[in-house]
Amino acid sequence: MKLVTYRKGAVEAVGAVRDDGVVDLSGLAASMLALIEGGPALLAQARDYMATATTTIPLSEVTLLAPIPRPRKNIMCLGMNYAAHAIESLRAKGLPEKLPAYPVFFTKAPTAINHPGAPIPLMPELSSQRDWEVELALIIWLPARNVAPEEALCHVFGYTILNDVSARDLQTNHQQFFFSKSLDGSAPMGPWIVTADEIPDPHALRLQLRLNGATMQDSVTSDMIFDIPTCLATLTRGMTLDPGDIIATGTPSGVGMGMTPQVWLKAGDVMECEIEGIGVLTNQVEG
Amino acid sequence: MKLVTYRKGAVEAVGAVRDDGVVDLSGLAASMLALIEGGPALLAQARDYMATATTTIPLSEVTLLAPIPRPRKNIMCLGMNYAAHAIESLRAKGLPEKLPAYPVFFTKAPTAINHPGAPIPLMPELSSQRDWEVELALIIWLPARNVAPEEALCHVFGYTILNDVSARDLQTNHQQFFFSKSLDGSAPMGPWIVTADEIPDPHALRLQLRLNGATMQDSVTSDMIFDIPTCLATLTRGMTLDPGDIIATGTPSGVGMGMTPQVWLKAGDVMECEIEGIGVLTNQVEG
Repeated sequence: MKLVTYRKGAVEAVGAVRDDGVVDLSGLAASMLALIEGGPALLAQARDYMATATTTIPLSEVTLLAPIPRPRKNIMCLGMNYAAHAIESLRAKGLPEKLPAYPVFFTKAPTAINHPGAPIPLMPELSSQRDWEVELALIIWLPARNVAPEEALCHVFGYTILNDVSARDLQTNHQQFFFSKSLDGSAPMGPWIVTADEIPDPHALRLQLRLNGATMQDSVTSDMIFDIPTCLATLTRGMTLDPGDIIATGTPSGVGMGMTPQVWLKAGDVMECEIEGIGVLTNQVEG
Repeated sequence: MKLVTYRKGAVEAVGAVRDDGVVDLSGLAASMLALIEGGPALLAQARDYMATATTTIPLSEVTLLAPIPRPRKNIMCLGMNYAAHAIESLRAKGLPEKLPAYPVFFTKAPTAINHPGAPIPLMPELSSQRDWEVELALIIWLPARNVAPEEALCHVFGYTILNDVSARDLQTNHQQFFFSKSLDGSAPMGPWIVTADEIPDPHALRLQLRLNGATMQDSVTSDMIFDIPTCLATLTRGMTLDPGDIIATGTPSGVGMGMTPQVWLKAGDVMECEIEGIGVLTNQVEG
């Protein structure tokens, strides 16, 4: 299922996308988080309801929001989780070109969440080095603690696209990544969550980012240094993950920081993030 | 006012501590977050109610919880915000002894929150270098965006104590601080929030940590490299802060990592974090 959070008029609701439009699921769950927390039983109900619903809303009549518009904790992200990107990043910073031996985890503030098609504030007074990062993001379903790698994917509710918009100058200045990755609107997500049953192998997905139509990032999720089971096993050894938690699994090479000369986002730029089996997340830089 | 979240039997409630016990404020606010979000009007009501209440619950009959048991986003923390601590940390890691030119912000997961008097899981199978960090933490009151330094303290609801329990080996391995600082139970907080009106100068407070009675950290909040107005002005330039957000302002020197030889927490260790004008937060390491 493709699950969305959408707005129609003043109403915000959760729904499922069919070929003929959106099926309103608000009779089953008040929000995406409620649907996730309902576990397998509620998801099965939603699937049945979607299959038999006789009315839909045309996609053109709704505004899609981030599937989880307000997460209950920061978005967790993997840094330097694709080898070619790790190398381009280290080279750009003049650091030794050494791949991480352990996963690098940082977070983005929930206030950074942004919607499909929504503008991304450029904030030129604050940063002159805004950059893009297409990422496969997963949503945690069942609470997870001390998860074995071979069971890790059972804890995944589904997958979506996240553009980890970054401010490279702030990233360098403030050392830890949190602030430079948490500017308001710098975490566009969506356009929907594809439930895990429809993505049997999350490590076989092509992911791309196009900037004004030109392909900048083009890789496959099989190139992750630390795969999803490894990341979940590592994180949950000591830290509990909750339903609705969002984990972005890192970006491949092709960010603006790694180019010669470097390329930074400017007002009017259009970013299209595409991941095979999920869809396209498009956002324009506001200026 | 000293504001607490407490449990009595099966009931969790928010209250105010008087000399003769706890005044139940649950008629005014369902939780500490609700009390904070109520703004100045609700806080004034709470103050009046506390002053005139005729019944209290003895402190000995309640269990104090973290004042905000479940924050709505990660706890934000300052790294290396006291010069002597920055130097001891860099020296222990064999890095150049250079003070940060910009505030270093990282986060701790909301699942790390722990309660006054509650045990801290040692997790020896995961880390053999658990360490302590007493910190003054502030709670955001009014939503804050683009705050001028001279107005920053108006956005502070109150202050509490946070022990930023860390895992130094994980901190080194995983590079970014998030995971090593986010183990379950590694953010004990409390015992209460002292409202900002009772702490006219948050930069004139002695803060100490005693390990099994021996003073390990002993400094003054005036030693912060980046003071609270600077931190809030920096964070809110580009990032919105919400009511109930928690910001821990960094730890002074005297952590176990900085000792020769290094000292790590072990089962049975008792940490007392004391900050002038607030109180004492005590936790024992579980083993």
